[in-house]
Amino acid sequence: MPTAQRAPAAVLLRRGGERLLFDCAEGTQRQLLRSNVGLIELREVFLTHYHADHYLGLPGMLKTFSLRGRNVPITIYGPPGLRDLFEALRRIFGKLTYTVELKELRPGDELLRQDYRLLAFAVAHGVSAVGYAVVEDARPGRFDVQAADALGIPAGPERGALQRGESVTLPDGRTITPDTVLGPARPGRKVVLAGDGGPAETVIEAARDADVLVHEATFCQEERDRARETAHSTALEAAGVARAAEVRMLALMHLSNRYFGGEVAREARTIFTDTVVPKDFDTIDVRFQERGGPLLVKGGALQQRPDREAVPTREETAE
Amino acid sequence: MPTAQRAPAAVLLRRGGERLLFDCAEGTQRQLLRSNVGLIELREVFLTHYHADHYLGLPGMLKTFSLRGRNVPITIYGPPGLRDLFEALRRIFGKLTYTVELKELRPGDELLRQDYRLLAFAVAHGVSAVGYAVVEDARPGRFDVQAADALGIPAGPERGALQRGESVTLPDGRTITPDTVLGPARPGRKVVLAGDGGPAETVIEAARDADVLVHEATFCQEERDRARETAHSTALEAAGVARAAEVRMLALMHLSNRYFGGEVAREARTIFTDTVVPKDFDTIDVRFQERGGPLLVKGGALQQRPDREAVPTREETAE
Repeated sequence: MPTAQRAPAAVLLRRGGERLLFDCAEGTQRQLLRSNVGLIELREVFLTHYHADHYLGLPGMLKTFSLRGRNVPITIYGPPGLRDLFEALRRIFGKLTYTVELKELRPGDELLRQDYRLLAFAVAHGVSAVGYAVVEDARPGRFDVQAADALGIPAGPERGALQRGESVTLPDGRTITPDTVLGPARPGRKVVLAGDGGPAETVIEAARDADVLVHEATFCQEERDRARETAHSTALEAAGVARAAEVRMLALMHLSNRYFGGEVAREARTIFTDTVVPKDFDTIDVRFQERGGPLLVKGGALQQRPDREAVPTREETAE
Repeated sequence: MPTAQRAPAAVLLRRGGERLLFDCAEGTQRQLLRSNVGLIELREVFLTHYHADHYLGLPGMLKTFSLRGRNVPITIYGPPGLRDLFEALRRIFGKLTYTVELKELRPGDELLRQDYRLLAFAVAHGVSAVGYAVVEDARPGRFDVQAADALGIPAGPERGALQRGESVTLPDGRTITPDTVLGPARPGRKVVLAGDGGPAETVIEAARDADVLVHEATFCQEERDRARETAHSTALEAAGVARAAEVRMLALMHLSNRYFGGEVAREARTIFTDTVVPKDFDTIDVRFQERGGPLLVKGGALQQRPDREAVPTREETAE
């Protein structure tokens, strides 16, 4: 349930020009309006499961889009049960000016995108539920200017082609393969949103080496029994998952209304130091590893002109 | 639709120990949590109609009450269609720890309470819809101390009885009727919530002499045609209703997201001066007429210790 300080579940992932919303609790459209993102015409929403605190913002948001005369379609993804849910929700939002596509995903299903993939994985919440892993493709290795100079590769289109992973033939007839001037491929980023659930092997597997694991911590250890009964995690359990998966940062959310955040962070940090408990409108800048890795930006979604973008600029991509 | 500055429709009426909620848009439970009222165990919610922006906060709020283990029943009132709506909503909020009673009200239906009545009246919104008038019983007249002294009525229980409207027999055998020491009965207060709709004779009738008329002003006159098409009012039209009904204060709400409030107030005030456009968390202190009438209190629902209560204190009632 919400508190005065904390809205219920909704996480927006920004990547390049894409905006992916994960869960859409009551009030999400207004949180977006209040943020520096605005209530943009989202193309895709991913639901983790169908407890009301994860989707109740959807009918109102769909209705608002319609009142604005939206015509681009929207796709809602979720575990089995999505069509059933929308039979009930349609009664609420009625006829829209655009198409709503529903796509049910089972654990193991994968969406292949141009340079990343989105994987649905099993979680342990006792109901039809999935988590989502956003996994970028590896990037080409760093271009070795000295090696290129030594090989006599002229500054020009040949270097660009090599950087993109293509072989080139020089005017003197030599063929240069990219591996001679490129360092090892550099990993892409990986962000894992586990949704609700108790600590699970499937989450550890899906979150392996992630830059950021967004995990619930509904309770602290003092309520461990309650966590078991309700198929939720304690902060310590979430930290255990993060440690086992060797993620770079653990972001805890979905706190019971009796917790304020500090105690949750402290409990998790006893075994996993790089834990954050973001507040409403905080952002996490998922920088590439060589640029320092993930960084919590307090109030990052409220800054009028964010001085740092959580996406690679054209220069970074091309470097 | 909501804006960053304005939540959609929900008005809480506080009167003595009672808390009546009129409409319950998305986000209402969190607005209550953020206010100095808190998310109290509301006993009664009154819906004006079933457009999503007037009830979408209800399923989440009902669910939250249940998560807190509530056991007192709640009654939801609304125009015909309420049962149908709840068939869809039940799919969302599921099994609750308490009973939800549904009571459909038609225009003309009246709820009689101890010292006020609640009247449902017709509005012109093109769908099943009602407005609500909260009408307090008249209060006994002012006690005329000089007259009582002149009649030789001793200071004591006799004066209390007379003040309550009872006749008393004095030790000397004389019977005094209350009209000899009480001024004319003083009117109770009247607050009218018209919900959504175009300007209507039925609203003027229901709002006659009200202390406060809460009326929608979705548009300004420049969009008068659109107001007609959508069965909404312009600010000027709402002001016309207030003027015709001779209300004391007009409070405008339900502004289209293209308006900020100032322009709406200005348009209405050209024909009805006592117009306010409350912002989120503003309150209106509905003082008795002899105490100055209604007063807008900016941020009144955010003050940690409100120095003025919009309900009569025991002293005021007894005076």
